[in-house]
Amino acid sequence: MKFCSNCGAPVARRVPPGDSLPRFVCDHCGDIHYQNPKLVIGAVPEWHGQLLLCRRAIEPRYGYWTLPAGFMENDETAGQAALRETLEEAGARVELAAPFSMLSVPHVNQVHVFYRARLLDLEFRPGAESLEVALFEEAGIPWKEIAFRTVGLTLRHWFADRRSGVFGFHAEDVVPR
Amino acid sequence: MKFCSNCGAPVARRVPPGDSLPRFVCDHCGDIHYQNPKLVIGAVPEWHGQLLLCRRAIEPRYGYWTLPAGFMENDETAGQAALRETLEEAGARVELAAPFSMLSVPHVNQVHVFYRARLLDLEFRPGAESLEVALFEEAGIPWKEIAFRTVGLTLRHWFADRRSGVFGFHAEDVVPR
Repeated sequence: MKFCSNCGAPVARRVPPGDSLPRFVCDHCGDIHYQNPKLVIGAVPEWHGQLLLCRRAIEPRYGYWTLPAGFMENDETAGQAALRETLEEAGARVELAAPFSMLSVPHVNQVHVFYRARLLDLEFRPGAESLEVALFEEAGIPWKEIAFRTVGLTLRHWFADRRSGVFGFHAEDVVPR
Repeated sequence: MKFCSNCGAPVARRVPPGDSLPRFVCDHCGDIHYQNPKLVIGAVPEWHGQLLLCRRAIEPRYGYWTLPAGFMENDETAGQAALRETLEEAGARVELAAPFSMLSVPHVNQVHVFYRARLLDLEFRPGAESLEVALFEEAGIPWKEIAFRTVGLTLRHWFADRRSGVFGFHAEDVVPR
């Protein structure tokens, strides 16, 4: 951020009075511009024990496999975001169950949340951001070609919980290795 | 948003090519400025069956009671945000347990997440944003003076789960009445 989005004057970065962190501050109109983490919301769509993955048609991680997910938008709920992203990226209609995982990724200022979901039919097809969409048994998951660590962790928890017979809620942090 | 935070030129609001929602777009430098929901992270600090609440010293809802919570910052995890807000607003040191509630509040573009937490000592004291901090038994909770619906819902789930003997994870939407 270089300019004030309210008045167009240049901004400075400093700790405002009463605050403890540096912010982008406008000395012309007085606005303080806070920057906060973004939510990425997705689903783990299941069809009789198989999970639906999308192969990415965009960077980052072009060609790698992911769960349908994307940035939550203003004016929607987290559940609506999960349904929308699943439809946009996989052309798939699902019924959502409970939230399943929440992963903080502080080095990119994101929190990823994935819902369990039941695929309603087999009419899925790749959206504009996917090269292909396919169902995988656990043994067929392309573990070495998973796009993001939050997706890999979520998939591992899902198969472990299925084995244990109880699906929980998994909160974890993903930090640089 | 009226001006581009990258180059200072006026922005227009329209749907960019390949997108489906209106965004603030800069025709001078080409930047697209996305606006997304913010995460509010808090804790439900317990001391032997009593819960710690803070009475707000700031607007909105000056004078009303709330759980310690606030906007998650860049470069931190959700758990770190819960610990930081609990220390800032209630001067309280806690040990976090699992996330307990996640409430979407789409009309203000927020998602609130509260963690269960165990108060480590009784050395709490109001921070700059609190008038007072106190422990409440269920019968003493000031239900008519709770600042936010997400806090009221979280408290009700907490006491209901304690009665049932099992603490779960509660995801809900809070929409205008």
